[in-house]
Amino acid sequence: MTKTRLEALSDGVIAIVMTILILEFKVPKIESSEEDWGLVKDFIHNLPVVLSYIISFLVLIVWWMSHHELFHGVKHIDRKTIFLNGIFLMFIAFIPFPTALMGEYPGLHFPSILYGIIGMFCGASYYCLYHHVLKKNTDHPFTITSKEALSFKNTWLHLLVYIVAIGIAFISPYISIAVYAAVPIYFILKKNG
Amino acid sequence: MTKTRLEALSDGVIAIVMTILILEFKVPKIESSEEDWGLVKDFIHNLPVVLSYIISFLVLIVWWMSHHELFHGVKHIDRKTIFLNGIFLMFIAFIPFPTALMGEYPGLHFPSILYGIIGMFCGASYYCLYHHVLKKNTDHPFTITSKEALSFKNTWLHLLVYIVAIGIAFISPYISIAVYAAVPIYFILKKNG
Amino acid sequence: MTKTRLEALSDGVIAIVMTILILEFKVPKIESSEEDWGLVKDFIHNLPVVLSYIISFLVLIVWWMSHHELFHGVKHIDRKTIFLNGIFLMFIAFIPFPTALMGEYPGLHFPSILYGIIGMFCGASYYCLYHHVLKKNTDHPFTITSKEALSFKNTWLHLLVYIVAIGIAFISPYISIAVYAAVPIYFILKKNG
Amino acid sequence: MTKTRLEALSDGVIAIVMTILILEFKVPKIESSEEDWGLVKDFIHNLPVVLSYIISFLVLIVWWMSHHELFHGVKHIDRKTIFLNGIFLMFIAFIPFPTALMGEYPGLHFPSILYGIIGMFCGASYYCLYHHVLKKNTDHPFTITSKEALSFKNTWLHLLVYIVAIGIAFISPYISIAVYAAVPIYFILKKNG
Repeated sequence: MTKTRLEALSDGVIAIVMTILILEFKVPKIESSEEDWGLVKDFIHNLPVVLSYIISFLVLIVWWMSHHELFHGVKHIDRKTIFLNGIFLMFIAFIPFPTALMGEYPGLHFPSILYGIIGMFCGASYYCLYHHVLKKNTDHPFTITSKEALSFKNTWLHLLVYIVAIGIAFISPYISIAVYAAVPIYFILKKNG
Repeated sequence: MTKTRLEALSDGVIAIVMTILILEFKVPKIESSEEDWGLVKDFIHNLPVVLSYIISFLVLIVWWMSHHELFHGVKHIDRKTIFLNGIFLMFIAFIPFPTALMGEYPGLHFPSILYGIIGMFCGASYYCLYHHVLKKNTDHPFTITSKEALSFKNTWLHLLVYIVAIGIAFISPYISIAVYAAVPIYFILKKNG
Repeated sequence: MTKTRLEALSDGVIAIVMTILILEFKVPKIESSEEDWGLVKDFIHNLPVVLSYIISFLVLIVWWMSHHELFHGVKHIDRKTIFLNGIFLMFIAFIPFPTALMGEYPGLHFPSILYGIIGMFCGASYYCLYHHVLKKNTDHPFTITSKEALSFKNTWLHLLVYIVAIGIAFISPYISIAVYAAVPIYFILKKNG
Repeated sequence: MTKTRLEALSDGVIAIVMTILILEFKVPKIESSEEDWGLVKDFIHNLPVVLSYIISFLVLIVWWMSHHELFHGVKHIDRKTIFLNGIFLMFIAFIPFPTALMGEYPGLHFPSILYGIIGMFCGASYYCLYHHVLKKNTDHPFTITSKEALSFKNTWLHLLVYIVAIGIAFISPYISIAVYAAVPIYFILKKNG
């Protein structure tokens, strides 16, 4: 019972974050002489927004998939799980802001640095939740099928990639954006492969 | 269990998309001398927005209905299903933008072209999901009751209508909007008939 | 199963409509010399918005309560139920616009006329859904406990009140707003009494 | 059954309120000469918004946790429960406005006074709901494990803290904001400890 509502709240927050990303697409005010070309020019100008939207959507699909697989094997939920899950959702809910910033100012450094920092906090809060859940549910499929589940190897690897990407963002935002896009794509390919 | 959360996420996204469509209706700033007539004139001026909202709402009801009937018979869910469903939801979440654009500039060509393209991507991603789900669930009611379920006939038919409508949009946006409205109405009448 | 997702979609749409009502409260830009008094004056100026928000929230609670009690006794769902429920949700999703309009221009006639018209459509679409559901579910508690359930008496009564309120709105918007507020309060008192 | 939908509606509203808090973060318009520093300056300028967002998110996590634990033990739901729950959700949905106000004008008195008033109404409506639910469910775990569950001690304590914080807000908004932040943190530490 408990688990059902925690999952429902998480699904709700992730579904809303997925959808409000799109609210950044504003209907442009075009000059009457421009007509269709005005709209096309505005749309092309906004392609970075489309791209950063797609990246964040992929990131959110992967977070939802991880959350889903983690809680699938959960039987016992305590207040700390609820609290850690809430903190994770808080950082997830931050994602639309750097996404919009990155879409609006793709050439600047700050948006991709901030995007990386938020992504790192999502990761860090997720791993706190992850380790707490596995500790409380000793019969969780993750720990049964893999001895590495409780090790911090994957945790550090994911956070390390983000730290490197943030470092790269100080030099070239484009390369760091490519890294942010590569992480969910790699994850999806690996999981499906 | 798995299925429940995938359905919850999808219901959440579709419910939000249905509702944020309406956020385009902005309270107008009227001049104090105009009073009621200012509001009435603004409302009449915004009737295309109302109309394009109704069309998209019907389209979303039909998508939800299809999604619902597809997953009703599903027993096995894998990561690829989650991923393909996510891509489908991403294109669904795009719908409000061309809807708003079409409502704001009903006489221009670009909005109805973009609306058709998004609709086509929704269709294409849905059919990828559909065929993957039927392949994984060989005991799905769709394949049992109809041998055509796995054929691509209906798939191509639906996409073909959208491609034709996009072509028409280059000549007359009004006719293509009529086609976009006709698709869900036809679907609803056929299903209820 | 079917019923669960239809209820989830409806809960989602109603929850979102309840919450986006509040998005009308914009953080005001005040002049630096005004400070606190600027915010207080703005808040007092916006009290009609608060009031119209509270009325719509009560209306939505009552609609949700009715929807909930109707579907509680439902066993069989067909495509027409899904479609009629969708149309009902479409009119529910319209509510925030006249609510915001009524809050912004409380002295004008058009906002309360439009509010009444939307309310009437909500009612009409609900009764179409209601009668279809009772017809399909002959063992529904409503028809078992009360022979009047299938009569159109309550239907007409509710719509009649709205038609009268719309008529009043042409003369005095304040009295019609009082009627809109009285309907859910009467319903809640009657049901709890 | 009944309970499931009431929980779903509440989860939906709370999830949306959690997420629309973030909509206050607007992508800034920077002058082209400023580039990254313009964004950094804007972000630093908006740190109070981030802080008030985090406080409200913690408050919402705690409200959700309380609501969740209350309804976990509920078996009987009547119309009054639905109505009182609706009123509670209405005040919850008000939270984003004073949160945004407090973030925008952190040095002024009115935002933190209003934040306290809304918080007090959330508390008052929750305790009405709480006592009604415990009265209707005499076998609720709360009353079985603790004789104090039905006393009004905790109720008054919580409301008292808010009344004191509102009083403080007339003198120093910063201290009252610290109190608002301390309440959920104290609650979380106590519950986890």
